[in-house]
Order: sequence, then C-alpha cells, then structure tokens
Amino acid sequence: MAANSRFGVAVHVLALLAVSGDERRSSRYIAGSVATNPVVIRRLLAQLARAGLVESAHGSAGGFRLARPAARVSLHDIYRAIEDGGFFALPGKGNEDCPVACRMKEILDGVFARVESKVVPELKRATLADIVRRM
Amino acid sequence: MAANSRFGVAVHVLALLAVSGDERRSSRYIAGSVATNPVVIRRLLAQLARAGLVESAHGSAGGFRLARPAARVSLHDIYRAIEDGGFFALPGKGNEDCPVACRMKEILDGVFARVESKVVPELKRATLADIVRRM
Repeated sequence: MAANSRFGVAVHVLALLAVSGDERRSSRYIAGSVATNPVVIRRLLAQLARAGLVESAHGSAGGFRLARPAARVSLHDIYRAIEDGGFFALPGKGNEDCPVACRMKEILDGVFARVESKVVPELKRATLADIVRRM
Repeated sequence: MAANSRFGVAVHVLALLAVSGDERRSSRYIAGSVATNPVVIRRLLAQLARAGLVESAHGSAGGFRLARPAARVSLHDIYRAIEDGGFFALPGKGNEDCPVACRMKEILDGVFARVESKVVPELKRATLADIVRRM
C-alpha cells in the first residue's frame, strides 16, 4: 500500500469501528469493507493499536474496536499513528562527496517543516466523529 | 521509491541541474549524487521532462538540463510533475455493499481537499532558485 493511501485506509477502518460501537470486528470483516487483503489490514490495526486508537480481544467474541470515543480521535492522531516521519519522507542520504547532496537534507527539512506546520492544524481540527457524522 | 520520498528526490535532482547551469548531466551522474539507481532517476527525469521542467539531448554531449530558469520553477510545479493526485491518495474503491465504504471516497475527498488547500500556497511560494540560494 502506498504511503499516502495508508492514511485514507486508516480513516476508513476507524470509521467502520466507530459505527460498529461496542461490537468487535475481525480483520477479515474490516478487509471486506475496504476490499483489500486481511494481512494489510492486520498490519495497519497493529499500528493503530500501538498508538492507542484501537483495542483487540482474542477468542470467539474477539476482534477490534475503538479504544476511545470517536470525538476524541483527531485525524492528526490517525496520521501520526501510521506515518513515521512527516508528509514527505526525506530521501536516503545522498553522495557525501557531492556538495548538493550534502546540503539537501537540511534544506528539505526546512521545506517539509513549513508544509507540515500548515497541515497539522487542519488535521487536528477534524475528528473521527466528524467523519462518522457525515456518513 | 515511496510516493512521499519522490518529491525530495525530485527537488534534489532539479537543484543539481540548476547549479549545473548549461552543462548537461547524465542520469548516471545525477544518480551518483542522489546515491540511487540510475533507472529510478531516469523514470523521474521522464516525468520532469513531460511536465516541461527538464529537457534532454542525446549523443555525446547529451544529458539533462533545466528547461527554464530556477526562479520560474516553484516547488508546487515539481510536486505536480511527479504526483498524480494529491498529497494523500484515495484508497481503492471499497466494498460497494458496505455503507461505510460507499461514503468514504466522498468524505476523504473533502478532507484531502482541505489539506491540499493549505499546502499548495506554501509550495507555490518557494522556488527552485530559493533552494539553490540556500546551498
């Protein structure tokens, strides 16, 4: 899954759990809604669980549900849960003997930080509950 | 190359061509600076050429150079050249029988459009010449 489509899938998964309320959903069920492979969904759920956004239970009544109310999950929480780093990833370290490559990381860092500073407030403003309300 | 690191690499490539002036550079030379595979760079250069940002010449004095002055290439021009679609990609069409999946595209479209509206002015403000000046 491309880095930048992962965010949309994560919102989809969490919206599905939000409308499911206390009913737990299996990764297979969720994968059926997203129309993707359950393995992809399980990897994503593991990231969302690590970030404290979903909780899981094993056994016959097992599955996933939201770990906190949808009104307390911002889109920024979701973004942070699945992307390590920012909206753009820095490319790998370039050739150390090239003066352009040597300066590139610092310059791109500055550009990316400015972009990020515009996006973060926008993502903090909207919650999963807002998404569900529009469904 | 991950979708979101492609932008950083594209800025690197164009900055290298900007400092090279009228001297044409081969994809192998550029790949040496980025420290990646020439095939990756050639694919990227093809996209940049289609967008009118670089021009190429064949033969012994061949290679790539900027197609217009660095001051007339905004970071947004670069972004548009390499990303089809926006900062986040919409996930594939979900399950048509699922009411959550059915609404997801429209809702995410709205979210992504709002994010995009914050990012685009920021990327339009900065040019490749600004990048090169900081090198």
